[in-house]
Amino acid sequence: MPEAGCVFCNPTAESILWSDARCRVLHVTDTKFTGFCRVVWNAHVTEFTDLDDAARAHVMSVVCAVEKALRRLLAPDKINLASLGNQVPHLHWHVIPRFRDDSHFPDAIWAAPHRAGAVRSAPRDFAQRVKEALDTALRSR
Amino acid sequence: MPEAGCVFCNPTAESILWSDARCRVLHVTDTKFTGFCRVVWNAHVTEFTDLDDAARAHVMSVVCAVEKALRRLLAPDKINLASLGNQVPHLHWHVIPRFRDDSHFPDAIWAAPHRAGAVRSAPRDFAQRVKEALDTALRSR
Repeated sequence: MPEAGCVFCNPTAESILWSDARCRVLHVTDTKFTGFCRVVWNAHVTEFTDLDDAARAHVMSVVCAVEKALRRLLAPDKINLASLGNQVPHLHWHVIPRFRDDSHFPDAIWAAPHRAGAVRSAPRDFAQRVKEALDTALRSR
Repeated sequence: MPEAGCVFCNPTAESILWSDARCRVLHVTDTKFTGFCRVVWNAHVTEFTDLDDAARAHVMSVVCAVEKALRRLLAPDKINLASLGNQVPHLHWHVIPRFRDDSHFPDAIWAAPHRAGAVRSAPRDFAQRVKEALDTALRSR
């Protein structure tokens, strides 16, 4: 059941890179962390362990496919994965490419910044290439 | 191969709640986030996708068993999961029980605090109960 007031149940504007019947991959564009993606479970569940084993395996296969695509396309110094949901308690995973010269490195992106930080450009065909990578990686799931 | 200078390859003091041949669950005690646990992969790998499918499934089964144990023992308002590793690039997962009246809620624990924050006591037999829950949940893995 969609939850009233939940932005992931009632999205207004989303840049969807890939989706299937159970989840969708969003490109987070209102950020200076280039390539930031979010994997959102479509049904309204709060915690990772609210999913059964098969659903958890599915969402992590999508998270991993996103991580692999970002590593290949952007060659970040580190990938950060997080499922917090304190503000929006609807299961979603952040997949964040991090670079040594970004504003917050080596701290989490939620900490205070250390510097203005370099901002990279994503490849012009970033969305298409992520979509193709996910289609290929997840074809058999 | 253990990595020189890596605190997870060369631990000095760890409060180990549970372990198997591949990973260990630590109780993070130098924090005011009661029940904070960390799942550390024993071998030195950097990214989640450096593991193969079976190893990823294994570490997530441990993360989930920890999350379930913490939900049952502490009834937090939210669980936060994160694998960052910017400071220590050795695969580990944070499993953090969060409460509405903790110092940082609803922000991430790496953000600036909002208040002094309530600090809960863990049950006196917390370590034993987590160990038993993990033994039971992970017996067949």
